[in-house]
Amino acid sequence: MKVGYYQFRPLFGKIRHNTNKVVNALQDVKADLIVLPELAFTGYYFQNKNELKSLAEDPAKSSTVEALVKLCRKNYFHLVTGFAEKSRDKIFNSALLIGPDGIEHTYRKLHLFNEEKKYFDAGDIPLQVNTVKEVKVGMLVCFDWVFPEAMRSLTLQGAEVIAHPSNLVLTFCQEAMITRCLENRVFAITTNRFGTDKRPHGELKFTGKSQIVAPGGVLVQRAVSQREALFITEIDPAESHQKNITPMNDLIEDRRPEYYQNLIN
Amino acid sequence: MKVGYYQFRPLFGKIRHNTNKVVNALQDVKADLIVLPELAFTGYYFQNKNELKSLAEDPAKSSTVEALVKLCRKNYFHLVTGFAEKSRDKIFNSALLIGPDGIEHTYRKLHLFNEEKKYFDAGDIPLQVNTVKEVKVGMLVCFDWVFPEAMRSLTLQGAEVIAHPSNLVLTFCQEAMITRCLENRVFAITTNRFGTDKRPHGELKFTGKSQIVAPGGVLVQRAVSQREALFITEIDPAESHQKNITPMNDLIEDRRPEYYQNLIN
Repeated sequence: MKVGYYQFRPLFGKIRHNTNKVVNALQDVKADLIVLPELAFTGYYFQNKNELKSLAEDPAKSSTVEALVKLCRKNYFHLVTGFAEKSRDKIFNSALLIGPDGIEHTYRKLHLFNEEKKYFDAGDIPLQVNTVKEVKVGMLVCFDWVFPEAMRSLTLQGAEVIAHPSNLVLTFCQEAMITRCLENRVFAITTNRFGTDKRPHGELKFTGKSQIVAPGGVLVQRAVSQREALFITEIDPAESHQKNITPMNDLIEDRRPEYYQNLIN
Repeated sequence: MKVGYYQFRPLFGKIRHNTNKVVNALQDVKADLIVLPELAFTGYYFQNKNELKSLAEDPAKSSTVEALVKLCRKNYFHLVTGFAEKSRDKIFNSALLIGPDGIEHTYRKLHLFNEEKKYFDAGDIPLQVNTVKEVKVGMLVCFDWVFPEAMRSLTLQGAEVIAHPSNLVLTFCQEAMITRCLENRVFAITTNRFGTDKRPHGELKFTGKSQIVAPGGVLVQRAVSQREALFITEIDPAESHQKNITPMNDLIEDRRPEYYQNLIN
């Protein structure tokens, strides 16, 4: 399976520009699954809910999604992208799994980061694993990384690869994802954006360093911070089936769920 | 609160020697809580269950425990130590919380590492938090670190400090504990041993690098690998009450347990 990330700098509010940028960058790429950043088309740092409302879209009526589906069809690959998703009167910080036939799954960020809480609604559908060319792919968005339960839940559902669109402003995630891939023995593709959203109410700088980590916590590749980066590599998802960290320790079978009860109370 | 670790090299099977070593090293130490390595008195690399049986002790009848209680009484501190615990027909890889009045709690390692499974029984009592001079202390033993559920469970029970006796042979734990202290915002004292257990059936080298990590994943101090190290420092356990990683994100309140149900099934 050929997987990769496209780290770029979306321009705030310039949906058409950002869509063209992605479509152009991926025009001739051969891959099976490419992960884009969180909120890849709208930009990130909204002033308020009204501004978000004016930029968020119903994926079913979005010309961006239409362009991405067309791209997937042309190149016969799948994309996971962050997307400001309008759904009736709610707006979610979502990740879309898009293939040649359209949107295959929508994940709505369960753990909103900081000011996102002012204008996004918290995710309201269960964590789920989807199949992409026979590979089981789970989605997380950015700040979900800090809650070990999220990636664990996907692992327990059989995820082999975690697609993780991000707009990271802190610096902890990359190292933590190594721990996550060690404890779960799955692949993770964390795609971050770079650049700064300079807005009237303030500015946020994003930290780049998109990365792919293999089971066992092995860093496959990490981008630099402030530069565009398209990276594609071949992985063997079956590596994630090997849950043994020692000859006698399967990290999933060795769990003692009867002693973890207070995690869900 | 003054906490610390004593990293040393137990000699295999030399319980009296190892006990004297610890008692001498801590004779004049002023502290509130000191953490010793896993299986600090027997050594680690048993050939088989019979050998372990010949070295494990009922803590209530152990002259080592007696010496440690006396030390706690003299110096008015608490110890957490790894201990090969005989209990009727079972033997556990345990951590004992010992104070001036005796053993205050026994934690039995829930997640056995590799060949330990051949001769230890898996822990059979719930993770629990105990109070040491008004500070809430949770115990884990070594390989428990790789299961995020273990430290999470203690955190949700109010743990401020995790005492973590270890006999690490792999090199992942120290970095992973930084992630653990970031995601849970608690203190962790990981005490590892150093040196090698050279036995007829093979040898194991232990990796030292005992460490103390503060909430937020801040490394307070880390020992070198192959050298004795007694380290005591002042911490403010109340730092662990501050669960915010951003102004709007409390890492405990922001959890979405309704979406973590499969972690306990």
